[in-house]
Amino acid sequence: MHIKLTTGKTLDISEGESLLQALKRHDLYLVASCGGKGICGKCRIRLIEGKSRIESTGKLEPREIDSGIVLACQTFPSEDIIIDIPKESRLVVGDIIEISRSRDLFELFKSLDTKISPLVRWISVDIPPPTIQNNIGDLERLKKAIEEKGLKGMRFSHGFLSSLAKSLRDADWKVNLAYTYGPEAIFISRHESKDRYGIAVDIGTTTIVVYLANIADGRVIDVGSTYNSQIRHGDDVITRIIYATEGEGLNELREAVVSDINNLLIPIVEKHDIKIGDIESVVISGNTTMSHIFWGFNPAYIREEPYIPTLNIFPLWRAGTAKLNINAQSPVYTVPCVASYIGGDIVAGVLASKMHKNSEIALFMDIGTNGEIVIGNNEWLVTAACSAGPCFEGSGIRHGMRATEGAVESIKINPQTFEPTLGVIGNDKPIGICGSGMIDAITEMFLTGVIDQKGRFIKGLNTDRIRESFEGPEFLFYSDDRTDIVLTEVDIENILRAKAAIYAGISLLLKKVSFTLDDIDRVYIAGGFGNYLNVDKAIIIGMLPDLPKEKFRFLGNTSVAGAYLCLLSDNMRKEAEEIAHKMTNIELSVSRRFMDEYMSALFLPHTDMRLFPTVEKLLKNRK
Amino acid sequence: MHIKLTTGKTLDISEGESLLQALKRHDLYLVASCGGKGICGKCRIRLIEGKSRIESTGKLEPREIDSGIVLACQTFPSEDIIIDIPKESRLVVGDIIEISRSRDLFELFKSLDTKISPLVRWISVDIPPPTIQNNIGDLERLKKAIEEKGLKGMRFSHGFLSSLAKSLRDADWKVNLAYTYGPEAIFISRHESKDRYGIAVDIGTTTIVVYLANIADGRVIDVGSTYNSQIRHGDDVITRIIYATEGEGLNELREAVVSDINNLLIPIVEKHDIKIGDIESVVISGNTTMSHIFWGFNPAYIREEPYIPTLNIFPLWRAGTAKLNINAQSPVYTVPCVASYIGGDIVAGVLASKMHKNSEIALFMDIGTNGEIVIGNNEWLVTAACSAGPCFEGSGIRHGMRATEGAVESIKINPQTFEPTLGVIGNDKPIGICGSGMIDAITEMFLTGVIDQKGRFIKGLNTDRIRESFEGPEFLFYSDDRTDIVLTEVDIENILRAKAAIYAGISLLLKKVSFTLDDIDRVYIAGGFGNYLNVDKAIIIGMLPDLPKEKFRFLGNTSVAGAYLCLLSDNMRKEAEEIAHKMTNIELSVSRRFMDEYMSALFLPHTDMRLFPTVEKLLKNRK
Repeated sequence: MHIKLTTGKTLDISEGESLLQALKRHDLYLVASCGGKGICGKCRIRLIEGKSRIESTGKLEPREIDSGIVLACQTFPSEDIIIDIPKESRLVVGDIIEISRSRDLFELFKSLDTKISPLVRWISVDIPPPTIQNNIGDLERLKKAIEEKGLKGMRFSHGFLSSLAKSLRDADWKVNLAYTYGPEAIFISRHESKDRYGIAVDIGTTTIVVYLANIADGRVIDVGSTYNSQIRHGDDVITRIIYATEGEGLNELREAVVSDINNLLIPIVEKHDIKIGDIESVVISGNTTMSHIFWGFNPAYIREEPYIPTLNIFPLWRAGTAKLNINAQSPVYTVPCVASYIGGDIVAGVLASKMHKNSEIALFMDIGTNGEIVIGNNEWLVTAACSAGPCFEGSGIRHGMRATEGAVESIKINPQTFEPTLGVIGNDKPIGICGSGMIDAITEMFLTGVIDQKGRFIKGLNTDRIRESFEGPEFLFYSDDRTDIVLTEVDIENILRAKAAIYAGISLLLKKVSFTLDDIDRVYIAGGFGNYLNVDKAIIIGMLPDLPKEKFRFLGNTSVAGAYLCLLSDNMRKEAEEIAHKMTNIELSVSRRFMDEYMSALFLPHTDMRLFPTVEKLLKNRK
Repeated sequence: MHIKLTTGKTLDISEGESLLQALKRHDLYLVASCGGKGICGKCRIRLIEGKSRIESTGKLEPREIDSGIVLACQTFPSEDIIIDIPKESRLVVGDIIEISRSRDLFELFKSLDTKISPLVRWISVDIPPPTIQNNIGDLERLKKAIEEKGLKGMRFSHGFLSSLAKSLRDADWKVNLAYTYGPEAIFISRHESKDRYGIAVDIGTTTIVVYLANIADGRVIDVGSTYNSQIRHGDDVITRIIYATEGEGLNELREAVVSDINNLLIPIVEKHDIKIGDIESVVISGNTTMSHIFWGFNPAYIREEPYIPTLNIFPLWRAGTAKLNINAQSPVYTVPCVASYIGGDIVAGVLASKMHKNSEIALFMDIGTNGEIVIGNNEWLVTAACSAGPCFEGSGIRHGMRATEGAVESIKINPQTFEPTLGVIGNDKPIGICGSGMIDAITEMFLTGVIDQKGRFIKGLNTDRIRESFEGPEFLFYSDDRTDIVLTEVDIENILRAKAAIYAGISLLLKKVSFTLDDIDRVYIAGGFGNYLNVDKAIIIGMLPDLPKEKFRFLGNTSVAGAYLCLLSDNMRKEAEEIAHKMTNIELSVSRRFMDEYMSALFLPHTDMRLFPTVEKLLKNRK
């Protein structure tokens, strides 16, 4: 059987195969946040011709169903069909988001006043060439020469030795030897000064970011980012773990992330005329699941109570083991994790924030595909993961999407007419709402009285933008001949749940260490979403605590920043390990008190208005 | 173009491709001792129909050329041809020579009175299962448990960790952990007593022998042997090294030996109903070139002055690195080598002979594809390789062949009529002469006055068995309608060169340490050929020194015997390393005195008859 696309392409499909699977097989990826379980309602396509068995219509509106919209994951053609894939259903992964020296972390490194001491050290050795009288083996000769320089107990891998004979002779026995912890020899080359490079990689659930640095002087050469193409198999960590446990899932996910990194490196090194083989060390930072998948470890037990990762402190392995397309012997350092849901990205974040060095008490929040919180100072650190979920990245929200072209990122609602004014990324026709747009929408709807404190639509308002849909009431933000963009009451509920999870996490964590919000001197906000977050509005909806605005600092991607610091310095790697060791992880999901905190935070901004004095004041002034 | 065989098969051949290459490509291997350089004259085939360009006729007799015989390596068809491959040109490799518990090395091990201490140790650990309160990672949990048992600093490879989570849970946290030197963890499994196996492998240039042993009690389970299928690319070490340096040669040679071992293991484990995954350790023993090729190291510099191997002392790597089809984590120990032409096979041989433990001075000789000599005792050891070459395995001898079916292995010549009586392996029609047949032939021809002390045919004898050929005179041992079997004067010269190299090696080595033959208390003869060697005759031709017969001991394959000892015991591995360290290698080829010794030994038995008193007496009595 065949699928014909309105673009002209024709693809084959087998009996019993879903449209989503068939398209995937032909490298045509649809947004499928739930991984193809018929739950998220994102993989919408329009059936134009041909019969199909449709297992479920999930989140589709009757109106959509009438116009031929189906969920690709629930559609099993029984004959040749013609389909149209709407723009908003298309998933673009593998593409490079950007390559630019966007933020020079070098300043951060310089502020730490620590020496450069990368994963790889070099020594130069002049080896007496062999003769008939002095005919010991190459390895024994090299060992003798470096032992005379005081380096004892060096280990030599099979990979290192396989090119040793040629390398020694090519270099005419005057060599530079590179070694890493162990000590273990890793490369050998001719005496010559050459540039030395390393990469720091943030493996986010959604985005992968690579920093290429000159590890001789610490300067950032370039930065590239791309979507984690694991997105093809689901948006959040849990969906990925489930996918990893099915058939070849783990290998597919592993290959996805590794080839994303490999593909991202090519244009970066080409741009700077650097040999990819000259990248001699790597640091990766990711949440515990991403770190496991990167190394090919089954993350299944991370998800099952009592939530145990295979390991938190990763040995130093080689780029060849990771299947990275750089020098196979290059060491790859993994920023240590703390627990199943507190990973190296958070440890790297704390490291980059420097909160572990100061006596002032800081709150660190990483709002990405999930939300993690750390509270503490140079004496103690507690941490918790809030199951906020990836709703601010569009997942679970009818017209939610990532902050890319066509996303509504800001919203104003006229308090008289209830007419919205939309700010759209790329100034194009809107196709969905991204995280900052959602927070704006909730804030505006709340302040203009469109919704109440529980996030429910107020009845009887003089506007037809509030309308009844098959799922209940919704607010229409935009409409053209092709698309409506709405926020439904269910969407609002989901957003409230996410913000409540974050706030409840902060509350409970503070109570666990017997502190109050007033004790917090500094709030660090990390994560891609953090860059676009409007603090005032996030306080109004009760996602962030009601603290003076000057206490907030946006740190951007601290996962890659911490990875970069670890790339450059032994001290930083030691600090990362100390942070991982010191951090006490609180499992929120098993705490009854968390449920209480969470329920109280499901209000706008909170059931206890005393916690949000500035919002209380604002609401009073409005009235 | 096509090649049609008289067996009915038709194969394709390309323009410019030699017959030898084309047949190889179709897995039809011919004897090609020189590796296809047109030198050895072994890859004879008969051209029946079709035109070919013939580059050289090498060692072929005009008579043979007239009857359509060509060298496959020198024949380039220009149209479809029909050929016949004579039996003696066919190379059978990959076939299993035999699987039988031929020699129980267990007795040898027991005689050493040492404890069993294999490469792999096991400890049993009861690990407290994780809970929400005690939720450290699996690796951290395992580490803690074994550290409590006093095992600190354990290393964990990526391969080990990739199955850790499942293994721990499958075993319900009650595990047996296997580790090797480092210490490094290698396997983990459920608490249960199970058999534990290891293999000792002799990688000979010609033959590969595998001993499967139960490493819990030391018993030999079975023995298998096969030809080293590297023979396809040449008979001797030098030809293999040259092949290894060309294109994909090294990989081909490596794959050949590794798949020989893998293929040999299958019937052995099946016969005994053993899971191949239960083979948990490996020891390999081979000459330096074979050890390099097994591990994929380029042996090129072994052949070039000053003859330097990449390494002599091999780190302990894993079966997965070696591409052996057993548990990938199993450690593989390589018996240490001494120098480019004194390998682990000789170190293993000394170990198995126990000469390094006794005060009596012993001479150890390994006569295989090459000839190596060790002289010494528990205080000192000197060694040398004699470039004897593989002539006793048939290489470089017109009708030479290995000791397989159809080989003339014994010869008697009637002193009156000069008519020979032949003993043939398998009692079939003879197709060639093997090593022991050659020694018999020389001895008999010498004693009956067919050849003189220089190995030249005596003129004017009353026999038409001595005849003139295109290469000079030859002796006809056998003739039928298809084949003649002869030894030419050139063949005899080659055999004399080989025996002279061995004897000169012994002489010079003795002189280097200022000893004489009388000081030698014991002569150990190792190697496959050694099993069939008639000491009396080997003394008559001057290959072995003229010492009392009771001083000689045949030890068989000491390379595999030493490997087996190393498989069972830490002490034996330590002793092997001590032997390798202690042995002083003398490069004969660069010594002027060697040339003198060699020239003197080119006689039958020697120019200095005082060195061979029993031969002198025998010759006097004959007259």
